[in-house]
Amino acid sequence: MTIPDLTDVHPAWLPAEAFRAVGSRHTVVHGDGMLVDTVFDEVERACAAHGGTVRRGTGQQDGVPRPAGDPDAAPVGAGVTPAQLVFALVPTIPAVAPPGGEATGSPDGDPVDAPRAGLDATGAGPLGPEGFAVARHGEVTVVLAEEPAGLLYGLFEVVRLGEAAFGPPYPARAHRPAMRRRMLDHWDNVDVHPVMGQVERGYAGGSIFWRDGRPRRDHARLRAYARLLAACGVNAVSVNNVNVHATEARLLTERLDDVAEIADVLRPYGIRVHLSVTFAAPVVLDALPTADPLDDAVRAWWAETTRRVYARIPDFGGFVVKADSEGQPGPFSYGRDHADGANLLAQALDPYDGVVHWRAFVYNHRQDWRDRSTDRARAAHDHFALLDGRFRDNVIVQVKHGPMDFQTREPVSPVITAMPGTRLAVEFQVTQEYTGQQRHVCYLAPWWSEVLRFGWGEHGRTVAGVAAAGGDLVGVSNVGDDPFWTGHPLAQANLYAFGRLAWDPRLTPQAVLDEWIDLTFDPAATADPELLRGTLHEVMDDSWRSYERYTAPLGVGFMVRPGHHYGPDVDGYEYTSWGTYHFADRDGVGVDRTRATGTGFTGQYPPPWSQVYESLASCPDELLLFFHHVPYGHLLHSGGTVIQHIYDTHFDGMAEVAEMCRRWKSLAGLVDAALHARVTERLDEQLRCAQEWCDQINAYFYRRSGIPDAHGRTLY
Amino acid sequence: MTIPDLTDVHPAWLPAEAFRAVGSRHTVVHGDGMLVDTVFDEVERACAAHGGTVRRGTGQQDGVPRPAGDPDAAPVGAGVTPAQLVFALVPTIPAVAPPGGEATGSPDGDPVDAPRAGLDATGAGPLGPEGFAVARHGEVTVVLAEEPAGLLYGLFEVVRLGEAAFGPPYPARAHRPAMRRRMLDHWDNVDVHPVMGQVERGYAGGSIFWRDGRPRRDHARLRAYARLLAACGVNAVSVNNVNVHATEARLLTERLDDVAEIADVLRPYGIRVHLSVTFAAPVVLDALPTADPLDDAVRAWWAETTRRVYARIPDFGGFVVKADSEGQPGPFSYGRDHADGANLLAQALDPYDGVVHWRAFVYNHRQDWRDRSTDRARAAHDHFALLDGRFRDNVIVQVKHGPMDFQTREPVSPVITAMPGTRLAVEFQVTQEYTGQQRHVCYLAPWWSEVLRFGWGEHGRTVAGVAAAGGDLVGVSNVGDDPFWTGHPLAQANLYAFGRLAWDPRLTPQAVLDEWIDLTFDPAATADPELLRGTLHEVMDDSWRSYERYTAPLGVGFMVRPGHHYGPDVDGYEYTSWGTYHFADRDGVGVDRTRATGTGFTGQYPPPWSQVYESLASCPDELLLFFHHVPYGHLLHSGGTVIQHIYDTHFDGMAEVAEMCRRWKSLAGLVDAALHARVTERLDEQLRCAQEWCDQINAYFYRRSGIPDAHGRTLY
Repeated sequence: MTIPDLTDVHPAWLPAEAFRAVGSRHTVVHGDGMLVDTVFDEVERACAAHGGTVRRGTGQQDGVPRPAGDPDAAPVGAGVTPAQLVFALVPTIPAVAPPGGEATGSPDGDPVDAPRAGLDATGAGPLGPEGFAVARHGEVTVVLAEEPAGLLYGLFEVVRLGEAAFGPPYPARAHRPAMRRRMLDHWDNVDVHPVMGQVERGYAGGSIFWRDGRPRRDHARLRAYARLLAACGVNAVSVNNVNVHATEARLLTERLDDVAEIADVLRPYGIRVHLSVTFAAPVVLDALPTADPLDDAVRAWWAETTRRVYARIPDFGGFVVKADSEGQPGPFSYGRDHADGANLLAQALDPYDGVVHWRAFVYNHRQDWRDRSTDRARAAHDHFALLDGRFRDNVIVQVKHGPMDFQTREPVSPVITAMPGTRLAVEFQVTQEYTGQQRHVCYLAPWWSEVLRFGWGEHGRTVAGVAAAGGDLVGVSNVGDDPFWTGHPLAQANLYAFGRLAWDPRLTPQAVLDEWIDLTFDPAATADPELLRGTLHEVMDDSWRSYERYTAPLGVGFMVRPGHHYGPDVDGYEYTSWGTYHFADRDGVGVDRTRATGTGFTGQYPPPWSQVYESLASCPDELLLFFHHVPYGHLLHSGGTVIQHIYDTHFDGMAEVAEMCRRWKSLAGLVDAALHARVTERLDEQLRCAQEWCDQINAYFYRRSGIPDAHGRTLY
Repeated sequence: MTIPDLTDVHPAWLPAEAFRAVGSRHTVVHGDGMLVDTVFDEVERACAAHGGTVRRGTGQQDGVPRPAGDPDAAPVGAGVTPAQLVFALVPTIPAVAPPGGEATGSPDGDPVDAPRAGLDATGAGPLGPEGFAVARHGEVTVVLAEEPAGLLYGLFEVVRLGEAAFGPPYPARAHRPAMRRRMLDHWDNVDVHPVMGQVERGYAGGSIFWRDGRPRRDHARLRAYARLLAACGVNAVSVNNVNVHATEARLLTERLDDVAEIADVLRPYGIRVHLSVTFAAPVVLDALPTADPLDDAVRAWWAETTRRVYARIPDFGGFVVKADSEGQPGPFSYGRDHADGANLLAQALDPYDGVVHWRAFVYNHRQDWRDRSTDRARAAHDHFALLDGRFRDNVIVQVKHGPMDFQTREPVSPVITAMPGTRLAVEFQVTQEYTGQQRHVCYLAPWWSEVLRFGWGEHGRTVAGVAAAGGDLVGVSNVGDDPFWTGHPLAQANLYAFGRLAWDPRLTPQAVLDEWIDLTFDPAATADPELLRGTLHEVMDDSWRSYERYTAPLGVGFMVRPGHHYGPDVDGYEYTSWGTYHFADRDGVGVDRTRATGTGFTGQYPPPWSQVYESLASCPDELLLFFHHVPYGHLLHSGGTVIQHIYDTHFDGMAEVAEMCRRWKSLAGLVDAALHARVTERLDEQLRCAQEWCDQINAYFYRRSGIPDAHGRTLY
């Protein structure tokens, strides 16, 4: 395989410079297999750029490295340049990590709770199919793994470490992914959808997979994408939109070759391909009279269809299904429930170790706004909690992290703790549908990190723990055919951070951002590394909270323009059938979701959260209006009134964007000129839009409440 | 020419039954020319259906009828069946109408003021190119005209009269159109526009002219359309959208044959074809460096292009232009004004008697909602009034009837009285963009009639008078390829009424509806003519006011969903750049357009209206919130408060729709079953939507004002 240089596409976090430390060493790669070949190819390319050398090891003859504790692990043959970097497979590593070494994740423990439980100090046990260990002994850095994928992830760890991987000796550090599957869902359409376009909720141009009804076939681009994903830890991709239309439905059968072609390109980077399918497939593709999950012919159809898929793509990942949701067909049509539906597909996938991702995003989108008892927040729990224990082992119920739909602020979905007998995947939205659509800087890792670290109480796991137990973290991709991949260049950091947090939820958002900055911008090679690093942190670290400040206050969501969801429209959804309201009147605002007087949603939480959210005295400020309807004069824990908080945060958020713009200007000359220009242009739009949010939200609530700003600022 | 029977399209107001009276007589048609042939063909077809006969007269030999006062006007040849209906051309008719006869319209007088001025009693003077007279002498009905078009309009008058045309003798009644040009603008796109579709603001399916980038070429349908238009008096059609996109621009040049083909089909019914053109045509079509109206090369380009148009279509009507408006290019780009722009095209058209319709719909659509001094209502007057007297004779400045944009209620545009030295066309919107989109019954003739009869003061003309002086009434077409032509079958009445009011603005909406009902439904042939007529009147007569009641109160406009403009969204435009707001807050609502404290728009009116609208004491209730911002407790002339008026009218309007539905059901069996079903289905939607309007508007203002309904009805 040749690793292409894409001249017209930004290299994101894998520019040639990122391989300087690796590419200037003498490397030996031991082992066989496609992913070992990939490691070799990557190092070879790095050496071509930076002057190092690489050769294949020859197994035992060339010396399989001894256990990592042995300083002679890297053998030197006669007449051969001494190796400075060694990759090798070992059958088992009984004790790679001495006390004091680090280990990330654990397939059994809670990846976020682990530090508190004292599990991080040992790192003992097998590395597993994707784990690896890195050690430095004398002048040799060694990467060991039990399987080829581990070597590949180890390579990218060494790339991340850069020169630090080649400094003073350090004992073996074991790395294992917290989540078995770190998956990106592409909401890409094969046909251009008349309303949603080529990519639903895509803000980075067209699809990298599809164009106008056909495969895009830009294999160089796909390979570059696979490298980027592997380098941040992603190992699964679904290649089409969860809303499966007519053409996309046929990817499962007559257009399977198109999927196989993508799988072939992604495979060398350890990425398996999944497919979104329509539950009605037997009816729409083969004219069966029913898609009833309990019908024998339907079962036979799925079994045979799945058999053909695996005959063509032996490492196919599985199916993704959005059923009985927003118009998609599902088991409800046949009087069956979601366990029946999911198990049907799971049974067909079972012989091949495939999984079905069955989305829990089921709610009534034909709601009556007059009816205050119906609550969209309740829907997933109402539909799924009672099915716990009824799903087959290879069903993964995929739950959005919040009870609504990827708003800027939501509580954690109570479904995530309600199904201990079911494998759950937690779903994040990397594409910034409600968070600025890649026209705004909005670094989402702090938000995700908050969610992943959220604990369910004394005996429960964290959200990350539940996802790790189920195996999956899933993100909706923000990638398109844009030269910067993600429209906004700084949105690349969200894609990178998603992969990294899925691998290790204990990483801090700041640390992930450091990694991303160092890889992407190579600050050390610039005139002012600290200005570059510092400014990027200043612009990005708090950008999600800035976004929250100038948009939705105190947990109110959906005050956006219906349809495209960009920009403010306070009443945009207030009288629609989608069920997402704030009930603002002249006296107050918010949705009463208490058990005492509201929709009872708080009752879906276990203690202590059921009480924390129920009570005005304990409900966190940032979720106040999500759980309670309060007067504008209500005093927050922070000390101010609700109305003054609305005014203050909006003015503050807008000022923060103005400051971002100012700071970004200082980076001219320190970063790539085209990238600087693109970000500048987007920041201009962000500032315009932030002003619009600030003025509209404040005007709306001022006109309703009649209460002037305590600081006398202009309200329209 | 064969007049086709369309089996799959509703005959609208020209079913075979409408020709019963004509088709069962013995008719002689004198004269030559294409339109005389059309008269003959129409009568021949009617005779084939109803058993009469028709023959061509042979000029003098066969006896040109003597003046209409002569009872022997219809000569009988030897061996020839005595004629009962005669059509004949006469060179002049010096005194066709004896005292007491009727005459409609007058090219010089004010068609609405005329009755008051006593002009209607004479009807003297030439009939003109389209006028005619009808008389009944003994057993013979005679239609006389000076030109063939007059005979055609006379035929349709006789069709309208039915048996009444053949009853007791009556003296000659002269008919002349009030407006020289009675024109429909089709906002049809040649290419399907990605957002607006095949017809912009079309609610009746595709275009009858275009489909997917090509001419539709359904000549039978076009001919049927031409007949319908001629039968209600329309004599000009523009065949493409005023928003001229790339493909449509080329109709002017390389795709001119497509236009000529349409002209050929419409011509036998006296209809001339006009074309919407882009002001940037020289640049976009021929790569000229500029479209500057004062540039010699540009002038030469338009002269030569127009010459070619007339070489291909000798009776071509002229150009329609939307310039410097909502993104369309115009003279402003070159530092020129709209007189420069319009005169450029007028000069090119002048040698061929063509006209340019230059739309006055120019406003800033990038307004700042924070800025209360900018007022879209002012825009047309601000831009055009100062240009009065600068336009060439064949420029017709086309003014929307209100200052905004075809809302349910607006004052009359002050531009209409501000340009005495300019020919003006008044523009109505037959397609129901803001009035229910042909899913609601909304008979618009009462609204148009109010506007046409609006008087500017002691010495001014009425609106109809201004339009008649300028020559034109223009309507935006509501026709598509729907089997009922207009989506909602009852919306056919709007198309019919537009033509009839353009011909004679003195007709009452009820009288026009009577004509339409009798032609369309042939009540006399049903089991219960009075139930049919009465019910249609009950459903339609007041439907515009019902629509106003359940939608926009007291002259507030634009409380609709942005984009498609259907259904309520009170704040939909409140914070946008389009400039159409209500400024509702917890204390009051409305736009202050006074000179004293507001935008000064009232100052664009002459006395007495400048004072009537300025003063709260005299401003009519129905326009109160258009001109004034008032507290919710403000007392209306009607006696109630503004807020209670909002509640009452919304509940009332909704109840009226429920009553419409009830009444319509009683017509089952009396009207065509498919038509009954279509109207029933639309009434269901109207009722649903009326409920939505009622509940949302009331909820919105209740939540703002906090004032409960005086009658205790539910507010959400």
